[in-house]
Amino acid sequence: MQRIHISRLPEHIGERVRLAGWIHAQRKLSRVSFVVLRDGTGLAQLVLEGTVAELAPEAVVEVVGEVVASEQAPGGVELHDPSFSVLATPAEAPPIELRRPLLKEQLPTILDHAAVALRHPREQAKLALAAATLAGYRDALDGLGSTEIQTPKIVASATEGGANVFAIDYFGRDAYLAQSPQFYKQIMVGVLERVYETGPVFRAEPHETARHLAEYVSLDAEVGFIDDHRTVMGFAREAVAGMVEGVRTRAAAAVALLELGLPEVPDEIPIVHFADAQALLERLTGETVVGEPDLAPAHERALGKWALREHGSDFLFVEGYPMAKRPFYTHPDPARPKFSASFDMLFRGLELSTGGQRLHRYEDYLEALAARGLSTQPFEGYLEAFCFGMPPHGGFAIGLERFVARLVGAANVRETTLFPRDRDRLEP
Amino acid sequence: MQRIHISRLPEHIGERVRLAGWIHAQRKLSRVSFVVLRDGTGLAQLVLEGTVAELAPEAVVEVVGEVVASEQAPGGVELHDPSFSVLATPAEAPPIELRRPLLKEQLPTILDHAAVALRHPREQAKLALAAATLAGYRDALDGLGSTEIQTPKIVASATEGGANVFAIDYFGRDAYLAQSPQFYKQIMVGVLERVYETGPVFRAEPHETARHLAEYVSLDAEVGFIDDHRTVMGFAREAVAGMVEGVRTRAAAAVALLELGLPEVPDEIPIVHFADAQALLERLTGETVVGEPDLAPAHERALGKWALREHGSDFLFVEGYPMAKRPFYTHPDPARPKFSASFDMLFRGLELSTGGQRLHRYEDYLEALAARGLSTQPFEGYLEAFCFGMPPHGGFAIGLERFVARLVGAANVRETTLFPRDRDRLEP
Repeated sequence: MQRIHISRLPEHIGERVRLAGWIHAQRKLSRVSFVVLRDGTGLAQLVLEGTVAELAPEAVVEVVGEVVASEQAPGGVELHDPSFSVLATPAEAPPIELRRPLLKEQLPTILDHAAVALRHPREQAKLALAAATLAGYRDALDGLGSTEIQTPKIVASATEGGANVFAIDYFGRDAYLAQSPQFYKQIMVGVLERVYETGPVFRAEPHETARHLAEYVSLDAEVGFIDDHRTVMGFAREAVAGMVEGVRTRAAAAVALLELGLPEVPDEIPIVHFADAQALLERLTGETVVGEPDLAPAHERALGKWALREHGSDFLFVEGYPMAKRPFYTHPDPARPKFSASFDMLFRGLELSTGGQRLHRYEDYLEALAARGLSTQPFEGYLEAFCFGMPPHGGFAIGLERFVARLVGAANVRETTLFPRDRDRLEP
Repeated sequence: MQRIHISRLPEHIGERVRLAGWIHAQRKLSRVSFVVLRDGTGLAQLVLEGTVAELAPEAVVEVVGEVVASEQAPGGVELHDPSFSVLATPAEAPPIELRRPLLKEQLPTILDHAAVALRHPREQAKLALAAATLAGYRDALDGLGSTEIQTPKIVASATEGGANVFAIDYFGRDAYLAQSPQFYKQIMVGVLERVYETGPVFRAEPHETARHLAEYVSLDAEVGFIDDHRTVMGFAREAVAGMVEGVRTRAAAAVALLELGLPEVPDEIPIVHFADAQALLERLTGETVVGEPDLAPAHERALGKWALREHGSDFLFVEGYPMAKRPFYTHPDPARPKFSASFDMLFRGLELSTGGQRLHRYEDYLEALAARGLSTQPFEGYLEAFCFGMPPHGGFAIGLERFVARLVGAANVRETTLFPRDRDRLEP
């Protein structure tokens, strides 16, 4: 008898079927026992008459029984008269109580025992959200005529500045882990015009915060022949709309289980200039912020609330951050050159994406590097792209784990990261 | 006037259009000049009457002109009466002659100047093949109910043995770059049953060969509740069929440009046992190979030719490699425990994929580690999955660059790797 997945049980009412999975929970009454079986697709209730032996939580079993419609049972069906065969017996009692509707353990315990904790249905659901987000991002970028690329993660020089970079011993030479695919995706604009990548990036973040990781999944894109950074913002809007659509269509069961309200992505995400955002924040909070080179997380939260209240939008673009805090490849706003042609996208008050127009003229790069006292030598392979003709271009990067965290309302990005890495955590 | 891409030109015959791209080639006759323009989607011929100024190769231009049908022109159309505006002028003459039908430079020169060399139409086409392969792989795995995951690349212990691993300074602690997602994809079988990943893996390969890289893209999958390794081979067959289908449907223009013959993936890929393969090789080559623990590349090539000749198949499974050379998590063949329940898949005589059934009982892991004199301590987070119930499972990994190399008949995997990394190459 072919095994079926739990999610397909309602199609087999009245039939005898074979299931396989893990013993999720067991409840004994005087004359009847209920066993909850879990597989990769969901939970099923099995009903056993009479006295039954204890089944160890997380034992792996095959079960043959009859599918019966039952309004009380989760999913509307249950399995009667089940017979079990055990495929694997746990060596001890699990360190995480998976049978609870919500995990009660503290986050460090959950992360330490990820191999078990991830088996919880809500954790499974978050994984489904992440996969659907990725697929939706790729669908959107494919639809925009962008080509997926895979660029090297071992690089010869730090991309985003030398501070938070991991060093590697590379056959006796110094090398680094890529902080972003920035240089490569720009080079590839010269090849394919529109490219994207979904892959790991590495930041040696010395601080422990709820929103930073030492390794995360970056959804990157770069596009050539743009008018200005507003063209890039249009692409970023399409990318995020694709991510939400991916979740809606590919992870409906996870959305239902987690009882999520999915955001609407407005056709035109509201835009506020950095200078205006600071003036607004002074009115909203009474703090003095004009003159600061960046927005603090609390300011982003205040702007997120304002965007929802004033524009009914979960998303907000802040454009025109001061050049002072932006990397050397940033294009200035031609009209106000102290401000950049760049942007952040906030999602429910959290910085989800950073992007903008890049310099594209070779002489501008030479000038920008010289102004920062940087040698051209470490950037030769990158500068070659500009030496031989590059169009106006720009791009953005979206943090996958941050998006999922904001979607499920997680306070800490580690709750939506598979095996997170930070200053203190390298395992599992 | 909205810019259009070159690939859409045939839809605009008789209209004035705006193109944008790079000056790919220029040919002057006495009364007429031909300029070939390149963008991310192809080449277009522009026809200029009278004398014209020299346009620098790789200058970035916008062009407005009239689309005229022309049987002689590539793509069946050309642009007449073009007017140019220059967006970026190259600083010097390119180090690669892109106008030739085939690049004439040596591979090291091509790789050194990747930012320019990749602009060649045949290089663009190989990038399209890689993207289509990835998409096809994901389509196939999604279709098999597998969930995409993204596992950490910074790890606490070497996965596949300690020899060829890159060490990192991780906030003052020792860490390593993941040689594969092996441990994590197995853990995730306990969570989602069927998972896959497409991401970078890192091998500190001390030898320079035409088929090894220090970093490559691994298409990984793992599946639970299998009967034996033959179930896994069925999944690997579906994955490769999806990759070929992805190329066929998503990269048709690249296939045509490169004049590729795509392989048929048989419903049942022929299977030969390792012991039988050795006996066969002795008959085919006259060499003594019985008793060797592995197959040499020349033997794989001979087997590939045999599979094509005898079975009409570009693909061949070799199963049952000796346990001696396989990693500790390998499941033995229950009937012949000196041989493993594992396999390689050869594609046109090159090892494309390795896979097999894994151990799933906790006690088997303790025994396997002890037999190799390994401590359990570095593997605690991994072993926890087995401690708390794991089903019979297995998986495989496919090298993306090797697949594309074999597809296009490249002699060196570096020809189909975006910015390759090896012992001597870290840039660009």
